[in-house]
Amino acid sequence: MTSPSPEGGDPSLEAIVTATFGVDGSSQFADVLPVLVRDLADIDWRVAEVLSSTYAQLTEAARYACSTGGKRVRPLLMAAAHRSLGATSTQPIHSLAAAFQLIHTATLVHDDVIDHAETRRGRPSMLRAFGLPLAIVGGDYLFVRAFELAAEYPRSIIMRCGESCADLVEGEVLQESSRFDLSTGRAHYFRIVERKTAAIIAAALASVAEIAGSAPPLVDALQGYGRSLGIAFQIRDDLLDVVGDADLLGKPLYSDLREGNPTLVSLEAYARLDPHHQAEFERLFQLRRKRTKHLLRLRELTLMTDAPATVAREATEWAERGIRCIEPLPPGPYRNLLERLARGAAERRF
Amino acid sequence: MTSPSPEGGDPSLEAIVTATFGVDGSSQFADVLPVLVRDLADIDWRVAEVLSSTYAQLTEAARYACSTGGKRVRPLLMAAAHRSLGATSTQPIHSLAAAFQLIHTATLVHDDVIDHAETRRGRPSMLRAFGLPLAIVGGDYLFVRAFELAAEYPRSIIMRCGESCADLVEGEVLQESSRFDLSTGRAHYFRIVERKTAAIIAAALASVAEIAGSAPPLVDALQGYGRSLGIAFQIRDDLLDVVGDADLLGKPLYSDLREGNPTLVSLEAYARLDPHHQAEFERLFQLRRKRTKHLLRLRELTLMTDAPATVAREATEWAERGIRCIEPLPPGPYRNLLERLARGAAERRF
Repeated sequence: MTSPSPEGGDPSLEAIVTATFGVDGSSQFADVLPVLVRDLADIDWRVAEVLSSTYAQLTEAARYACSTGGKRVRPLLMAAAHRSLGATSTQPIHSLAAAFQLIHTATLVHDDVIDHAETRRGRPSMLRAFGLPLAIVGGDYLFVRAFELAAEYPRSIIMRCGESCADLVEGEVLQESSRFDLSTGRAHYFRIVERKTAAIIAAALASVAEIAGSAPPLVDALQGYGRSLGIAFQIRDDLLDVVGDADLLGKPLYSDLREGNPTLVSLEAYARLDPHHQAEFERLFQLRRKRTKHLLRLRELTLMTDAPATVAREATEWAERGIRCIEPLPPGPYRNLLERLARGAAERRF
Repeated sequence: MTSPSPEGGDPSLEAIVTATFGVDGSSQFADVLPVLVRDLADIDWRVAEVLSSTYAQLTEAARYACSTGGKRVRPLLMAAAHRSLGATSTQPIHSLAAAFQLIHTATLVHDDVIDHAETRRGRPSMLRAFGLPLAIVGGDYLFVRAFELAAEYPRSIIMRCGESCADLVEGEVLQESSRFDLSTGRAHYFRIVERKTAAIIAAALASVAEIAGSAPPLVDALQGYGRSLGIAFQIRDDLLDVVGDADLLGKPLYSDLREGNPTLVSLEAYARLDPHHQAEFERLFQLRRKRTKHLLRLRELTLMTDAPATVAREATEWAERGIRCIEPLPPGPYRNLLERLARGAAERRF
């Protein structure tokens, strides 16, 4: 995640993409990145276009929610996947990519209401900036516009979109059911991640393949890739929340510890501690209102184990699994770029 | 609105429909009401079916939201409209009616979050019964399932559905923008009502006509009827909130006064008071935290004017406008019933 520019405006799409791939990656993919940057700009434009309401306040709030930074992971994946299948224009998927972007944003807005979050990507959250009513109905509005965009596509695509939204909600409900509970275990964590993160990326990429007219094995390939990448991404995200660099991330650390979400790194650290420290970890983890010293101690206890390294490796394994999924795709720079994106999701520092 | 039965279960659909039409109406329409009761049961069944999630908690929460009483005004209108166009089975509109019912319920659930409402139709609100996270994502879930249902229909229907949802959100935003402000005037009130209430009923009925294969004038007729009935319904709803009977309504009075919504009756009462009482009305209306004595005094001031009678007449005028809209429909018991429903919306006491 890139920090907002000093002027408070969004960083340019070029800057976002360059940051995503790093200096090396950006020079390796110098031929295709400008193409993808244009694709992202087209998708951003479609998002802005569809958010224009008669009511300035609603337009403003919805665009605010969509403009607060963000790495554009989903549209980038969708554009790269579409081009990897031989598309010379991503125009056919612009509305779909905009739809998935809006759904993603809607869930972030509602998540922030649930978590009473003050900030999102270094800026005031929608809740903070516009208040509770607009955060709630603004999120609804993003969902509605997303479905209108999805309605441009065949029913199978609309249903992929709808089912992944239902998954998202189920993931949220599952997550709520396990707050402050370290006994839920790995399987429960993966059930949440599958639904909260992986399902929608898998659905987005499968839809892209379907729109491109790809054969079922290629649809499955991209779906499997999206799922694995999503899991890798989320494992890494949860890891960075504990051991990452707040400045690089552009957001405060320890949100999962604070909210009592038993993420993979916490579960693995907890399992590895000796009984004495395990009891301390559990006691602190279960505190409903944690002070900074509690959060720092939880981090310290985590770092006493090799859980961070193990979990990082696990994220990489998921990325590699995703990369194996797309072996059936035509070789070329876009497939290479998808591989790079999977590894990046698992290994990023921001 | 019927009160929940002593066992706390839902009242039967027969009881709901009988209450809607009263004793006289129920005997007048004795031939067709059993047909509509079966239609409502089918639509209820479709709602329950589509809400089954893998996660018991989510299924339970979503069904709770959909089962808390309710007069089934929208499905009743849709079934009656469909049959008035000659349909011998309402099966083709069951999913659509379920979709509109879910959308309606989703907005109520999110409204209750915004208003911190403790009760809804005499039972704990979803917020109260399941907590904030489930109220928010549960509402989202209802929207998602609604769109999946809408996806069974042609794109024009999905877009009617989507646009009316966007209207709903705009109505909510407009309403928020005028809280505690009596200077917004009648036009603003009608803009809110058009969007919050009328648009979705109009869209539902226009969609029914489209699905029935009706000619454009009949689509327009039902759309116009739905819009006028929706306005009549809302004017009456807002009036009953001030001068109604809480026991009959099954909900506490004065919610609009408490929340500072400048409804038609408040605007008209305010405009009619002498300067002294006008100042008192405004001062009390603007209080962010009103005590019972403040609410009762606002009611008393309202009753000092003929605003309640004027506003009641206005609701009836909208109902009559709606009835004129459906003159092009084939005459018969279902058209008569639609006429009765319009007058009932404007003249009901609960």
